[in-house]
Amino acid sequence: MRGVTIIGIGSTPFGVLEGKSLKEIATIACLDAINDAGIDKNDIDAFYLGNYISGILVNQETIAPLIANSLGLRKDIACTKVEGACCSGGIACRHGFLLISGGFCDIVLVAGVEKMTSASTEKNTAAIASGMDWEQEGKTGLTFPGFFALVAQRYMYEYGCKMDHISSVCVKNRSNGVKNPRARFRKEVTLEDVLKGKQIVDPLRLHDCCPVSDGAAALVLCRSDWADKFTKKPIDILGAGQGLGTSTAYEMPNLVSIGATVEAARQAYKMSGIKPGDVDVVELHDCFSIAEVVDCEDLGFFEKGRGAFAAFDGETRIGGKIPINPSGGLLSKGHPVGATGAGQMYEICKQLRGEHENQVKDAEIGLVHNLGGSGAVSTVHILRRR
Amino acid sequence: MRGVTIIGIGSTPFGVLEGKSLKEIATIACLDAINDAGIDKNDIDAFYLGNYISGILVNQETIAPLIANSLGLRKDIACTKVEGACCSGGIACRHGFLLISGGFCDIVLVAGVEKMTSASTEKNTAAIASGMDWEQEGKTGLTFPGFFALVAQRYMYEYGCKMDHISSVCVKNRSNGVKNPRARFRKEVTLEDVLKGKQIVDPLRLHDCCPVSDGAAALVLCRSDWADKFTKKPIDILGAGQGLGTSTAYEMPNLVSIGATVEAARQAYKMSGIKPGDVDVVELHDCFSIAEVVDCEDLGFFEKGRGAFAAFDGETRIGGKIPINPSGGLLSKGHPVGATGAGQMYEICKQLRGEHENQVKDAEIGLVHNLGGSGAVSTVHILRRR
Repeated sequence: MRGVTIIGIGSTPFGVLEGKSLKEIATIACLDAINDAGIDKNDIDAFYLGNYISGILVNQETIAPLIANSLGLRKDIACTKVEGACCSGGIACRHGFLLISGGFCDIVLVAGVEKMTSASTEKNTAAIASGMDWEQEGKTGLTFPGFFALVAQRYMYEYGCKMDHISSVCVKNRSNGVKNPRARFRKEVTLEDVLKGKQIVDPLRLHDCCPVSDGAAALVLCRSDWADKFTKKPIDILGAGQGLGTSTAYEMPNLVSIGATVEAARQAYKMSGIKPGDVDVVELHDCFSIAEVVDCEDLGFFEKGRGAFAAFDGETRIGGKIPINPSGGLLSKGHPVGATGAGQMYEICKQLRGEHENQVKDAEIGLVHNLGGSGAVSTVHILRRR
Repeated sequence: MRGVTIIGIGSTPFGVLEGKSLKEIATIACLDAINDAGIDKNDIDAFYLGNYISGILVNQETIAPLIANSLGLRKDIACTKVEGACCSGGIACRHGFLLISGGFCDIVLVAGVEKMTSASTEKNTAAIASGMDWEQEGKTGLTFPGFFALVAQRYMYEYGCKMDHISSVCVKNRSNGVKNPRARFRKEVTLEDVLKGKQIVDPLRLHDCCPVSDGAAALVLCRSDWADKFTKKPIDILGAGQGLGTSTAYEMPNLVSIGATVEAARQAYKMSGIKPGDVDVVELHDCFSIAEVVDCEDLGFFEKGRGAFAAFDGETRIGGKIPINPSGGLLSKGHPVGATGAGQMYEICKQLRGEHENQVKDAEIGLVHNLGGSGAVSTVHILRRR
């Protein structure tokens, strides 16, 4: 298998991108990545686009060819949308990795995109719930906030922590987001703000939940032996994993662990030879504060039951044991669902290049974790600067 | 690159599958393929599912994990939905081929599924139009029947044929469908019936258009050197291509040729070393009668302008120069949009095994062509019995 290296990155801001269509924001992020890589668009051998609910929200499917034509890519390349709920962007990245690794392509453009804020809250709520098993749980009224509220309740019961501990994730991530120009929310919040916020689903309050957003991010992947031709800051993909979880809450053997994350991490660690203790910086899927807590344990950074206390104790801040979501995470950046996975890769590349607005000093190895559905699918990528 | 072989096939009937959900019909087709292959479900190393508009029509996304869990597949495998409008099934097949060919997997389950008939005609019309460039052409009112009507008008203008010639495709395909238990329509029609049918978009009439349908089809792909362990009738995939076309009618250099088809065919012929004259049987994307005419030319079976006359002269019937759509095609079988590409592969496998209900005698080499959007994306697979 050939090595794969990230040679270009691009992103729109995440947030309310008024007046800009799905096609426009995806095109902007892709052009940004192509320009950053210094390649010609005709060098691109395949295009993978992660997207979740553009069909429901803006009645636009077949969007990989659509964006490819907007960019003017070659006609002899395969342009494919992949979907795995909020993990769509991560799945797109992994497919770019596979096609270069397997020798099918030399350079692949991968991206993620979602346009959400032009649709009503009701429409977004129903659309996002299409990521659950609609027949079994979705139509009963269980939404993702509801699902993660169950996880939080069980987590507190199992491990004796309080929302003070879990919600400290929000305080950290909102503080991190202040410096990130791509983040939707750039104001600090206090723990008191969070705990007194509007209740969404008990025990989750407003700041415990990430906001729907518009956004797109893109990466240019390249066979590793060509990377030096294009960039002085190559970022190698050392490992890529994709795991399957349950599609319903009731099937989960354990509400406080997401099997798909554990499996994706196992694969990525094995492929890369990296251990959790080697990782310098992490972007993980904090769609809710409790998600970050569970994720950071499932990824091996803390023992089960320690994640919330670790956040509360500052161990996941920049300068702490393991900096998590220095970008501000989904809680600050916003969560354009199909774009998030690619956006997380963008943020870690900025860190490993030493170019992040909220830089983790001397970061050399980074981990990216993306999650979709009620824990139905997850990808983990492990990256290293040369 | 390793060889890839189809060792198992499964399909539901296509049509109105009342009382059966998306999940159920996909599960049935997949179990059918797994049983046919004689593998254990734990032998499956990855799962690709083609689907186009389940989000819009039945509010269900993240369906690759959903179906995988319904089947009880292993948790360490990647389960991914791919979308490229009506070409989604073909794209899923090509991804299974790539992952085995590249050495990532030994056995891959691929499937396509769509559940359409539970939604209203209006909802289906809007949903299918999401495959166009919605901003530029979809919302102006151009639908796929409208698009192919433009193609038909131009075709008649360019080549001096009449709807008598083009609609003879319907007569042939409906005749073929009579013997196919998976076909939605199993009654013959006369050319007069077609020409006097209800006008849909001038010059296309009712029988010129395929019907929306429910359906699922699945295939088990295996590394070629293992195939004999499982089946006495292995079908090798000799070539797989995927091409990009334009996303709008106005960008097409020529309304009477679909660039994505030409490109996908070029790739598949090159990879396989097969020429059009070597092919014994074809399943191609006859979403409208005119589509079959244009496709059979773009695939190299007839010169430009000859396709409609060839159909009229019986050259594409069983026993003719090149039998096209002996299954009845989309015009008879119905077109569950995300399932069609996998269903076409199923039909050709049955032919090459010598087991088809409407058998082409001694068929050894088959070609499968799937098309999505306004010619935005196409796949071509070339198969051969051992």
